[in-house]
Amino acid sequence: MRDLDEDALLARIFPHLPRGASTLVPPGDDAAVVAAPDGRFAVTTDVLVEDRHFRRRWSGGFDVGVRAAVQNLADVAAMGARPTSLVVSLVVPGDLPAQWVEDLARGFGAMCAPLEVGVVGGDLSGGPVVVVAVTAHGDLEGREPVLRGGARDGDVVAHAGVRGRSAAGWALLEEGRADVAPDLVAGYLRPSSPLALGPAAARVGATAMIDVSDGLVRDAGRIGRASGVVLDLVGPSAYGADVAALAAAATALGRDAGDWVMTGGEDHGLLATFPQGRALPEGFRVVGRVRAGEPGVVVEGRAWTGSAGWDHFG
Amino acid sequence: MRDLDEDALLARIFPHLPRGASTLVPPGDDAAVVAAPDGRFAVTTDVLVEDRHFRRRWSGGFDVGVRAAVQNLADVAAMGARPTSLVVSLVVPGDLPAQWVEDLARGFGAMCAPLEVGVVGGDLSGGPVVVVAVTAHGDLEGREPVLRGGARDGDVVAHAGVRGRSAAGWALLEEGRADVAPDLVAGYLRPSSPLALGPAAARVGATAMIDVSDGLVRDAGRIGRASGVVLDLVGPSAYGADVAALAAAATALGRDAGDWVMTGGEDHGLLATFPQGRALPEGFRVVGRVRAGEPGVVVEGRAWTGSAGWDHFG
Repeated sequence: MRDLDEDALLARIFPHLPRGASTLVPPGDDAAVVAAPDGRFAVTTDVLVEDRHFRRRWSGGFDVGVRAAVQNLADVAAMGARPTSLVVSLVVPGDLPAQWVEDLARGFGAMCAPLEVGVVGGDLSGGPVVVVAVTAHGDLEGREPVLRGGARDGDVVAHAGVRGRSAAGWALLEEGRADVAPDLVAGYLRPSSPLALGPAAARVGATAMIDVSDGLVRDAGRIGRASGVVLDLVGPSAYGADVAALAAAATALGRDAGDWVMTGGEDHGLLATFPQGRALPEGFRVVGRVRAGEPGVVVEGRAWTGSAGWDHFG
Repeated sequence: MRDLDEDALLARIFPHLPRGASTLVPPGDDAAVVAAPDGRFAVTTDVLVEDRHFRRRWSGGFDVGVRAAVQNLADVAAMGARPTSLVVSLVVPGDLPAQWVEDLARGFGAMCAPLEVGVVGGDLSGGPVVVVAVTAHGDLEGREPVLRGGARDGDVVAHAGVRGRSAAGWALLEEGRADVAPDLVAGYLRPSSPLALGPAAARVGATAMIDVSDGLVRDAGRIGRASGVVLDLVGPSAYGADVAALAAAATALGRDAGDWVMTGGEDHGLLATFPQGRALPEGFRVVGRVRAGEPGVVVEGRAWTGSAGWDHFG
């Protein structure tokens, strides 16, 4: 980095960043211009900070790029929108290898290119730690956005995506036991989100939806409180395959796999509610029911007494 | 800050953030939804980093909020677009007073509310220094975006906004002489941009436009190179009033006021080119001519040999 000026670094980054199918004016001017054929756009922002959200000794630039892209695109998908574009503000220390930054760009590219999402803008500054701030946009394709507050008594609760892998992978890294289950570690470093299922859920009439970033229980509670209903989730015993996939890690660390499934954060699955009897898009699995009652979440009819999920702040 | 959890801090911030006239779904869900009646939106991102772009001993939270908003909104305006919304990712150290963050929100509100620009999203994290990453959006109102590459031989070059004030104010702070010209110091801490003149310039047929963030000469060179023409600017002797306004500061610091006018950054004026004979929107002043030649910028027909402008990187 010390050897490179900003222009030289940008020249290494740009080839990895896809233009995107919705980009009308690409980066390079004062602003980009993106198509919003629906006459509206969904927009969300999330920031990753070194030593808060990732550690450079665990996460390479590619991993951080994938993760920053996924967590923002999942927020767009959770509105029922199709992601179209994102912008990245990047802060990098002077001793960061230029290759790390190029790998970050490759990570963004790997996530965005197959979706035809454009990386349409960016800013670059020096600073004491790596900070990656992303803003992502999506097109609602004529549908109403799926909010957190639309769940109704009698709806089914369904989830798409993995459960507990990111938390388990993080715990393995934390304890120096990545060797136990490299697939779980990869699930933490480079989460994958069923992004196409956000618009698919909206098309079949999802009444509420959320990106599961803070764990099933906690994010279900958010839908419950926003909707004024109770989400009654099945418990870990219903997730045999998920628990089995985490068993080796749980045993090695003396942890509870069911707790990871219920409260592990950063898997970026989609949790949605649907009117009863609706055929769900393939990939969603029913994990509970909505009923009237004190707004929030219960598991098998009772308050969940496991971990409260993750909170990176403070 | 140590005493406040994230929710308590957000509760102090939110009342200061305007919803905006274009906001269809406000913050609080996975994403916001913003109107884009034009079927397109302009988007730009910029990041401010403590001790790179501002110092907390000089800039209060309010100042930083104003500045972060202005520099992003000016980029939107420089496309000829009307700003509609922005999102903010914020990194704050644990010892930052909560009042500073509330003041930051007030700064964003002070800039955005009168323009009916919504602050439609945000993210908050801890970190070693303050980082403020903003993404701003605008509506093109049916017009083509005004790019940097459209200037043509024979066009006039015109500028709107202040010239050299921010650089002079910064120099006064740097030398501990803020007392010499508090108005210039304010021009650095809380720059103002003629945002409404961006769409106004587009309406009368501006052929190229740029937000002047790195100084008149440097940003004129960007239009020249993008357009394949030379922008021939008038020199400091043509800016009598600007030079006079900076004279006390220049004298006190042994600096050249003309150099500040020509190359001072972060004033966030708008530099545009227009076909000859076009009536310019009030607030623009002709500062040069476009002609064929080696693409770039000259001042009174010759290469500018003063400062090269600002570069925050590295």
